[in-house]
Formats: sequence, C-alpha cells, structure tokens
Amino acid sequence: MKGTVLYGPGDIRFEDRETPKIIEPTDAVLRIAATCVCGSDLWPYRGLQPIEGPTPMGHEYCGFVEEVGTAVKSVKPGQFVVGSFATSDNTCVHCRYGYPSSCVHREWMLRAQAPFLRVPLADGTLVSTPEGVPSEDLVPSLLTASDVLGTGWFAAEAANVKPGGTVVVVGDGAVGLLGVLSAKQMGADRIIAMSRHAARQKLAREFGATDIVTDRGDAAVARIKELTKGVGADSVLECVGTRESMMQAIGSTRPGGSVGYVGVPHGVELAGEKLFYTHIHLHGGPAPVRRFLAKLIDLILNGKINPGKVFDLTLSLENVAEGYRAMDERRAIKTLLTPQ
Amino acid sequence: MKGTVLYGPGDIRFEDRETPKIIEPTDAVLRIAATCVCGSDLWPYRGLQPIEGPTPMGHEYCGFVEEVGTAVKSVKPGQFVVGSFATSDNTCVHCRYGYPSSCVHREWMLRAQAPFLRVPLADGTLVSTPEGVPSEDLVPSLLTASDVLGTGWFAAEAANVKPGGTVVVVGDGAVGLLGVLSAKQMGADRIIAMSRHAARQKLAREFGATDIVTDRGDAAVARIKELTKGVGADSVLECVGTRESMMQAIGSTRPGGSVGYVGVPHGVELAGEKLFYTHIHLHGGPAPVRRFLAKLIDLILNGKINPGKVFDLTLSLENVAEGYRAMDERRAIKTLLTPQ
Repeated sequence: MKGTVLYGPGDIRFEDRETPKIIEPTDAVLRIAATCVCGSDLWPYRGLQPIEGPTPMGHEYCGFVEEVGTAVKSVKPGQFVVGSFATSDNTCVHCRYGYPSSCVHREWMLRAQAPFLRVPLADGTLVSTPEGVPSEDLVPSLLTASDVLGTGWFAAEAANVKPGGTVVVVGDGAVGLLGVLSAKQMGADRIIAMSRHAARQKLAREFGATDIVTDRGDAAVARIKELTKGVGADSVLECVGTRESMMQAIGSTRPGGSVGYVGVPHGVELAGEKLFYTHIHLHGGPAPVRRFLAKLIDLILNGKINPGKVFDLTLSLENVAEGYRAMDERRAIKTLLTPQ
Repeated sequence: MKGTVLYGPGDIRFEDRETPKIIEPTDAVLRIAATCVCGSDLWPYRGLQPIEGPTPMGHEYCGFVEEVGTAVKSVKPGQFVVGSFATSDNTCVHCRYGYPSSCVHREWMLRAQAPFLRVPLADGTLVSTPEGVPSEDLVPSLLTASDVLGTGWFAAEAANVKPGGTVVVVGDGAVGLLGVLSAKQMGADRIIAMSRHAARQKLAREFGATDIVTDRGDAAVARIKELTKGVGADSVLECVGTRESMMQAIGSTRPGGSVGYVGVPHGVELAGEKLFYTHIHLHGGPAPVRRFLAKLIDLILNGKINPGKVFDLTLSLENVAEGYRAMDERRAIKTLLTPQ
C-alpha cells in the first residue's frame, strides 16, 4: 500500500509503505473508510515542531475491521469502528478515572493517512457503531469523533460549560468550531466565537454561536468584557495553542470561571503570579476521546449533530499533499481523505 | 496609637501612627482582639518582594467593633467580628459567584498589626460571632478564619478534595497545616503532609495527616508515587509559592487530579506544553475567605476544629519585630500578637 510521510517542512509524500499486519495479539488492522488532516499535523508541517527523519502521518480514523489479534474480544472483522488518536487499555487506573489519553499503555497513533492501519490495544481503543455499518453520508461525522470532535467536546467539558452559561471559543479551526457545537449540546446560552473568516463564522453560527468577535489580543479581551457587561465569560475554550490565544482565553474568563485548553501549547509560558490573581480554573490536555466515543457516535447516528460539516475539502488519499497545503494556507478548514 | 511598619528587609518597627477613624460611611473601626504575622508578610520582610517606602503591615484580624459609619447595617459597636484580608462589598457579580477576593471594590487590608483598624466595606467584609462575644480561648482560632484557615480551606476546595480522596499538602507552614485540617474536614481518607520539621509534623498528624514525607523535589514526587501505587494523588494543596513547590505539587497529582494553589507565586513560570500532558486541574488565587467565614466561625465555636493551635508563639504587639524574626528563622510556625 501507499501511505503519507512527512519529510520536512512542507514536504508531504504519499509513498510505498509496508501494509500493516497484526503484531500483538491485542492489535486490530482496519481498512480505512476515511481519514483526515489535523490542525496539529500543521505544526511539524510548518517546521514549528521538529521531526526526526521521515515521519508517517495521520491519527484520525474510522473504518472496517479487517483482522484482529487472538486476544481481541470486543470488535470483530467486518464491523465499522471509530478509535481515539491515543490508544488505551481502558482498564488501568487513569482510564477508570476518565483519562484514557493518559493510559499507562498509551501510544500516540500515527500512520492513519493510509488505506490500512494497525491499531494497538483494539479492545480499549476502538468503539464499533451499534447497529452495523452506518450509511456513507455519516462517515465524515463519525470520523470527527476520533479526534477533532472529541477534542472540542473535551475543551467544553474542561471549561466547565453548564446550561445557561456564557462561553467564549478562541480559535476558528475545526476544533474550535466543534467546541462551539459541543458547548451548544451542553446547554450554553451564549456562545461567542472568535473568528475573522467568513466561512468559519458561518459554520460557527450554524453550530450554535450567538456572537462573533473579530478582534484579537487585548482588543478581543476588551470586546468580550464589553459583551459580558464587564464580567468575563464563565467558560473559555482555548483551541489554538499559541501564547496569544492562551492569554486571550485567560483574559476573557471571569474570576472563578474556567479555561479548557486543548490546543497543544507551543511556546506558552504562564506567569504564576499573574495566573494567581485571575482566579481562573485551568484544565486541558490531550482529549480523553475514548471516554466520549459511544456518546458522540450515538449523537451522530441519531442525527442530533452533524460535525462532519467541518470538512470543506475532500480529496483522495493520493492527493494528501494538497490537503495539507489547503489547510496551511487556510483555504480549507479541514481536509477529508478517502482511500479511493 | 502605635502600629507596625516595615522599613526594609528585616526592619520591622512598632511606631507612632495615626489612630484610624471612620472615613467612608461604609467603614467600621475595630479594636483588635488579636492579630498575627502571615507567611506572606515574610516575602517583603526577606526583601523578596519590593516595597515602596515604609509599609504598614498586617491583614489578619478579629476584634470588637468600636465605631461604624452611617451606612453600615450588618455590624454594630460592641460586636465581635472577623473579617477577610481582602475587603468585599459581597454584592457584586464576582462576590455572588463566590469570589469576594476578586470583588470589584476589593482593597487589600493593611495596618492590622496595631491596636485599632479601619475596615472599609464593613457590611460586606466582616462577620460577627452569632452568640455574642466568644470566650477568650477561642480568639486565636477565630483569628485564623481571617486568612490562614480560610486560605488552607480554599486550597482544599480548589484541589477538589472529596470524601475518600487521597490528598498531598506541599508546605508545612500554618497555611499548609490548616490545609491538612481542611482536607480532613472535607472527608479525605489519606492526607500526606510534606514536612521535615518535627513540631510541624506533629501538628500535621494532630490535624489529620496520615503520612509524612520528608523528601523534596523529584525525590518527594517519587515518594508520593510510591505511596499511591504509582498513580499520584487526587488532590494536591500547594501552600508555598515557589517554583520548586509548584513543580512538586504538579508532579504529585494524578492525571485528572487537581492542584489547589494558594501560596502567592514568586518566580513561578509554568511551561504550557508540560502542563498540558499532566492532565491536571489547576485552580487557586487569593482565598475567597469571606465566603467561608460563617461556616468556619461555626466550626470553631462548636469545637469541631481548633485551628488556633498553629500559633506557637504569643507576643504583645510591641514585640512584633521578634514575631517576624521567629517566623523568618522558622523558630515559630506562626506568631500571635495581642494588643496588651
């Protein structure tokens, strides 16, 4: 088969790779139905995160179980499954506390931008769709559960979104947009999305945003204060990972409010004393997607949410390099990749 | 009257000051029953926090209402009251959300190491003892509610201490020790106090500590991991404010667990990416003591807790300089100061 490999900044190749097979008895091999490019893939693509030689890419996936190892019990060949970007045994103490993305046996998934994928710890990592193979039009939405939706959902949970609450979402990438969707599902009354990009603003509104703020930095914070009568928001979702976005998130939160941060921080240093006087709650990290999978799959299959709308570009896998370029240049919100 | 003034590192003087009087109609003037030296007073005393010229000291206080302004309704002359180290109107939006120490009208109290004290926003800041003047032996405990107990209590609340939980307390000063007491009150099952000082270890055990760890830094974190079967603690109270203590607190927490930090951070910088992968909850700041006052006073008057035990040195106010010295040299945990 061919698979996606990053060779250096801007250098994505779709090239011959070994077809994955079962290695451990707890493995499964999937035939990918759909995969995609993640905002976090852009950090190394842009050279902002070092790589050690050619690196296989992709960690968002759903598809059909092709083969399972002898120890796998909960999924079987032919089933349609979605898995987290982080593997988990789903039995260790951290998993039981609800943090499978800190599982003691965690591995970060890689190599998902390919037609076949080996998934370690299949029993703990994969969740099958409850009523057989879903209709094809639901596949993009199911794919989002693997990371981008699960991450937006975690941002909202970590930011302690409550019914009736006021929410700010920093970041209009796919995670931020699905953070808006998640906050809406959790009953937020007011959802202020920060975006200066027409197509993203439109999707944010469709997902539940009640207000759009186009300012940035201190001006954005001032605007949030203005919109909240000087108080600040109850919950702020930080979905970028830069110093600026984190400061914007913290500055937009009321004392006692919460920042949920899911953008992998790059160059973010928090001054302890300054943070101290803000009185905010801070929680985040790699989203414990596995914990949300069954619920998110259910919401999608029942037509309650349509997160697949974040994909505004669909390419076949062999054109993956263009998928990266389009996202890098912000021509696309998120690129869906299909094997055929 | 005479009052306490810090002139520079190590230079505490008890000198002539103007006797406070009502300035605003919302003020009260108290005759101090007891006041004390706070761990945070040691930062400027040690020259680790700059002061701009001679600075009147003291922000922990309880005593008798001497006089009130014309607008004061909830306290009256003769009553015994305890107040927070931060004034609050107790009506603004931040107060209503439970963060009176972020009140829009907040002032930091000063000048409490003196026989008389002006308290602004008396209605929102002071709480009177419900059944008249308390017996004299309860005064030290009531005094702790003003800051050190309220701060330890907030550390435990911010660290999300729950019945049955495992708690670590970093810092064996009076705040840390009362953090132990607070965690015990909140039903923690296991309370691990970090201390290498015999008298403090003893008091920690008396307040509810089940284990003592004498290691520091990485060794302390390793020891906590060992004591918690490799998991880490559910709740960690950071009661110091140095970089080392904060790192020790974060390292001791399990993924999904919580750090409550109340030591005013000095030179603490948190690396965003590192924090991200710890999966911890972080909350803290100046304790919203006013929110806890009625409850803490009740626990004290009913003999449920005896936080006044943290005072192991009692001096008359005129010997305040020795009170600072004893705490600076760790000869005393906390110095009680009485006007006579």
